[in-house]
Amino acid sequence: MIKAGIVGATGYTGSELLRLLVLHPEIEIHAVSSRSDAGRLVSEIFPNLRGYVDINFCEPSPEQLSGCDVIFFATPHGVAQAMMSDILSTGARVVDLSADFRIKDQTVWESWYQQPHNSPELIADAVYGLPEVHRDEICDAKILACPGCYPTAIQLGLIPLLEKGLISTQGLIADAKSGVSGAGRKASVPSLMAECADSFKAYGISGHRHRPEIEQGLTRAAGADVSLTFVPHLVPMIRGIEATLYAPLTGAGKAMGLEAIQAMFEQRYQNEPFVDVMPAGSLPETRSVKGSNICRLAIHQQTGSDMLIISSVIDNLVKGASGQAIQNMNLMFGFEETLGLNHVPLSP
Amino acid sequence: MIKAGIVGATGYTGSELLRLLVLHPEIEIHAVSSRSDAGRLVSEIFPNLRGYVDINFCEPSPEQLSGCDVIFFATPHGVAQAMMSDILSTGARVVDLSADFRIKDQTVWESWYQQPHNSPELIADAVYGLPEVHRDEICDAKILACPGCYPTAIQLGLIPLLEKGLISTQGLIADAKSGVSGAGRKASVPSLMAECADSFKAYGISGHRHRPEIEQGLTRAAGADVSLTFVPHLVPMIRGIEATLYAPLTGAGKAMGLEAIQAMFEQRYQNEPFVDVMPAGSLPETRSVKGSNICRLAIHQQTGSDMLIISSVIDNLVKGASGQAIQNMNLMFGFEETLGLNHVPLSP
Amino acid sequence: MIKAGIVGATGYTGSELLRLLVLHPEIEIHAVSSRSDAGRLVSEIFPNLRGYVDINFCEPSPEQLSGCDVIFFATPHGVAQAMMSDILSTGARVVDLSADFRIKDQTVWESWYQQPHNSPELIADAVYGLPEVHRDEICDAKILACPGCYPTAIQLGLIPLLEKGLISTQGLIADAKSGVSGAGRKASVPSLMAECADSFKAYGISGHRHRPEIEQGLTRAAGADVSLTFVPHLVPMIRGIEATLYAPLTGAGKAMGLEAIQAMFEQRYQNEPFVDVMPAGSLPETRSVKGSNICRLAIHQQTGSDMLIISSVIDNLVKGASGQAIQNMNLMFGFEETLGLNHVPLSP
Amino acid sequence: MIKAGIVGATGYTGSELLRLLVLHPEIEIHAVSSRSDAGRLVSEIFPNLRGYVDINFCEPSPEQLSGCDVIFFATPHGVAQAMMSDILSTGARVVDLSADFRIKDQTVWESWYQQPHNSPELIADAVYGLPEVHRDEICDAKILACPGCYPTAIQLGLIPLLEKGLISTQGLIADAKSGVSGAGRKASVPSLMAECADSFKAYGISGHRHRPEIEQGLTRAAGADVSLTFVPHLVPMIRGIEATLYAPLTGAGKAMGLEAIQAMFEQRYQNEPFVDVMPAGSLPETRSVKGSNICRLAIHQQTGSDMLIISSVIDNLVKGASGQAIQNMNLMFGFEETLGLNHVPLSP
Repeated sequence: MIKAGIVGATGYTGSELLRLLVLHPEIEIHAVSSRSDAGRLVSEIFPNLRGYVDINFCEPSPEQLSGCDVIFFATPHGVAQAMMSDILSTGARVVDLSADFRIKDQTVWESWYQQPHNSPELIADAVYGLPEVHRDEICDAKILACPGCYPTAIQLGLIPLLEKGLISTQGLIADAKSGVSGAGRKASVPSLMAECADSFKAYGISGHRHRPEIEQGLTRAAGADVSLTFVPHLVPMIRGIEATLYAPLTGAGKAMGLEAIQAMFEQRYQNEPFVDVMPAGSLPETRSVKGSNICRLAIHQQTGSDMLIISSVIDNLVKGASGQAIQNMNLMFGFEETLGLNHVPLSP
Repeated sequence: MIKAGIVGATGYTGSELLRLLVLHPEIEIHAVSSRSDAGRLVSEIFPNLRGYVDINFCEPSPEQLSGCDVIFFATPHGVAQAMMSDILSTGARVVDLSADFRIKDQTVWESWYQQPHNSPELIADAVYGLPEVHRDEICDAKILACPGCYPTAIQLGLIPLLEKGLISTQGLIADAKSGVSGAGRKASVPSLMAECADSFKAYGISGHRHRPEIEQGLTRAAGADVSLTFVPHLVPMIRGIEATLYAPLTGAGKAMGLEAIQAMFEQRYQNEPFVDVMPAGSLPETRSVKGSNICRLAIHQQTGSDMLIISSVIDNLVKGASGQAIQNMNLMFGFEETLGLNHVPLSP
Repeated sequence: MIKAGIVGATGYTGSELLRLLVLHPEIEIHAVSSRSDAGRLVSEIFPNLRGYVDINFCEPSPEQLSGCDVIFFATPHGVAQAMMSDILSTGARVVDLSADFRIKDQTVWESWYQQPHNSPELIADAVYGLPEVHRDEICDAKILACPGCYPTAIQLGLIPLLEKGLISTQGLIADAKSGVSGAGRKASVPSLMAECADSFKAYGISGHRHRPEIEQGLTRAAGADVSLTFVPHLVPMIRGIEATLYAPLTGAGKAMGLEAIQAMFEQRYQNEPFVDVMPAGSLPETRSVKGSNICRLAIHQQTGSDMLIISSVIDNLVKGASGQAIQNMNLMFGFEETLGLNHVPLSP
Repeated sequence: MIKAGIVGATGYTGSELLRLLVLHPEIEIHAVSSRSDAGRLVSEIFPNLRGYVDINFCEPSPEQLSGCDVIFFATPHGVAQAMMSDILSTGARVVDLSADFRIKDQTVWESWYQQPHNSPELIADAVYGLPEVHRDEICDAKILACPGCYPTAIQLGLIPLLEKGLISTQGLIADAKSGVSGAGRKASVPSLMAECADSFKAYGISGHRHRPEIEQGLTRAAGADVSLTFVPHLVPMIRGIEATLYAPLTGAGKAMGLEAIQAMFEQRYQNEPFVDVMPAGSLPETRSVKGSNICRLAIHQQTGSDMLIISSVIDNLVKGASGQAIQNMNLMFGFEETLGLNHVPLSP
């Protein structure tokens, strides 16, 4: 049994951490902070947690958060950077769900997030937490940078191909779609139901912050610079991400053929508890992973075309955020990797 | 004032024709057929038409449909082919909203629709009804093949570029998303609200019937064979299509630059009443065209990339079907092209 | 042709006024104000209006709004009260969509809206604008108080019964349900799509501001004090109100019987262009009035029960707000009552 | 560890039983039948169950279902009646989620379901499974008639009041609203997403089959005939029921007052693991119970009114069907009542 704290628990990744942690057999919720709602009962803000959490939000200060074995940051970017040294000095290990420590190149981070990095000296120590790729490093991490939602769905779909040199490193396209919870739980006109229900749109077409994070991961897997066109879209649903990935096959990929590529995917992920390579011809639906930490993938090719198409679905709040954070925590603390994450997706 | 008939009026394109035609100043609804609901009052099936239409569905026979100046087919593929000769012999001109006469190559049609074509001798006479490209031919058409919903959104976004040789004819990608009304008004488990709401998925990833229709139109515009990867998706909304188009710029396109390409688009469509090239940086939403015959387009490019990105939105039931059918009819009968189509999109 | 101004045009009732007025043949949009967006192009905020409105938002000052024949207030309560004298002195007549002048009893208004009334001397002059009940007074109004959305749906369902003494004046229940556009276009966490989609709840159970307005209208129709239990609910849809009304039949009502009550309703509304008494047994759907100024009603009774049940549906933004405002304006200026309001409901 | 079988597992209550049972520590899924999909892999129909269930649907015959300790019927009405004797003779105990054995009066059942009852001799043996009211009888049941979804939400809200004589037994009103999964997983036009999304309607206004079931339960609790007006509505969401209950207070109820009634409710349900009486002033949302077996209740009264208002929410597929079925099964087999039912509601 270890003690956990959450900074920024009034957002969706924070409340999702609570949903998952309250039934985790090795976790005691020790402190839950919220600048805006400090003093209020957690279950007053999140009635779905009535009967499961009986504590009040505290101020997000190192004092209030001391005594924790692990601290989760479920905050906008910038917050974890500012508090990181103080938190580490309490002895806690950190799982950061924000973007603060995901990008290894400080100048790239600063140019996309338009502010100076607050703890540049800690960037090198942070481990990027995609367990299917970096499991060994994760176990020893002090600062775990939990991947973004789009980057998770996209990297899991492309990395096996890049590792084997089956697709080009140039001309890759990720057309990704997210439910509205991805925009967070903050008052804003464009996220009103009357503004985004029964409609669909692309956003960030000219450039989105997740692109450098994805390219960094793909480049590492390929061992060569990868360039990606990434366009996110807003879907009138609450949870879920689907990414349709378009990858020109290399000579090696063409020679291999779709059937063998399917088999390669199945083998690559055969021991991964949270990646499901679906049978040939499958069409993954986001609802098939709703509420769970699972990523489902399907691989396709159109007649007469050398473009490989991968469809990848996750729950943006679970495998794309809080579930993956707990998967990482399990590895960091030596628990079974799936502990507390065995949820059958809710469907319909 | 001319007399109009609709074959297959219990589907969504049929009922949408009714919604638009009942207020069209030059149209009298003469006959509305439905095999399944013959004898019933139209407004009983479609309560939104109460007070606007006071006739009963008839059987879809040439006798019942005789006396019309124009007949709209709002039927599944195969029906218009089978009835076409008989309908033409009543003297009516035909606007066919189905796929029966869209594809010029009979063997291509037969291989995608998995059945022999029933009126191959009429294929050559049919005019493909995308007014922004084929206006002159449309005016004289006896058989007007109204474009599919995806083909409309995609062709309007790519044709200006292909006409000018600014993008490659190979490696084009159309990642398109449609509301559920695109699946039609027929009982089916996958289209139940409990099955498709709050979820998102790709479908037809390995190949979809609209691909050859789109390639045919793009090839004609380019004057060279165009190959396209086309993946449709299902969005949990009722109406609307968004297509995100990825097109590698040619040398000429790169030399031209984004700003000049934007200007070229604005010029190409400046006299088109139903195509709106939005200002640079815009993000078209499907709701901005809901209920209207408008297509809105935006053109983007990401830093350091030679991939042009176009986002194109239409209402699949209006510009993607029934509105475009009326636009074509207006041209065929010498009415003002916009007559009966002046609807402000319904938003929110 | 008269000149119209709108105060508070960045909300949903304001933008809906614009959607309807831009095609109204007797209206020229003269001034459109918005405190928050003054100076910006209207169509930049509302892309659905691109091509229809080419003016900028102005400041909501009497100077900017002068020269108008009619001013619509589409503002939160309190604003029309504060500006009313100044606006009237410009010579304009006013259609107020807010709650400021709906309630005749100043103390009742002040107790429900928790603030002193700013123009108590003008309350008596204001005419309550439910045309189906107060048509004559409306024609001469200087200040027209446009009814609330719930009050419209509920009064149209109950007033014919109260006028005839067929239902009790006590123990009436209105269980009403509204789409989320009823909450307005302002940033707020509870109205986020992630908070209210795929969920349903009652609100204001202990008391809602529309209750005294409804009771005032019912009391006037009955000629006796009417008391109502009114509970509103939030439906995960954009537009629409459904009110299920429960009314104990009086002796006279029981004696009359359901069939005759149906006939009485049909007669009461037979000349009303915007009230549709549906055939016996009908189940009104909100989508059957979407985008239109129509109210549809159905009357039911359960076996062995003396409770009359009425289901009433409107589009909250049209007959519940902006459409009704224009219907009133048409009456005030001697136009055909239906002018500019002939929209077939958008379905599906 | 006991063996369970499910008859009719391709519907929503069947698939929901599977979702819950696969993680139940005392259950082994032994046989899962489906007439329509016999022979197919369960996870092919329900991809959310991939990795959890690895069996094929069998034919719904007593032979295929033999060897089970408990059989769940998740079938339309009529099926359980026809198979009941054969199933009982295999030695299994039965939990019937259909309406076949809920109503004690055979003629009432036959008049509402329009067919002769197939096993009238077994009606008396069946135990109505609302654990919060009938826990003792349930433990010994051979045939457990699991309550309907509306009856569960409504009875839990009214029974405490009727037990104490605080509300009238006449003039009760239940205005209930259900998500679309309540209509089942069968192909039908009215349940298409394009037909029911972004819309709201009442149905069954003139009479619904759940009314006699509810009145039977309320009458038993009151010890006197109770009559209820019950109107169900269709909400454009997937899961969830909200019932707003209107109950005239008796003299005793008025004397008691709202605060004491709130306390009475809290006491009545204080040991119930699945009923949550929310604090005074609360507004229960259906999403606060999504995916869980919890019923949440709030009690209200409007100023100057003697009408008590209760809002009750459940997940129609869990506490309204499959979760309650498992709660009953736990009682029948001597397991902890909450076993396998400890799910935090999924929110957002």
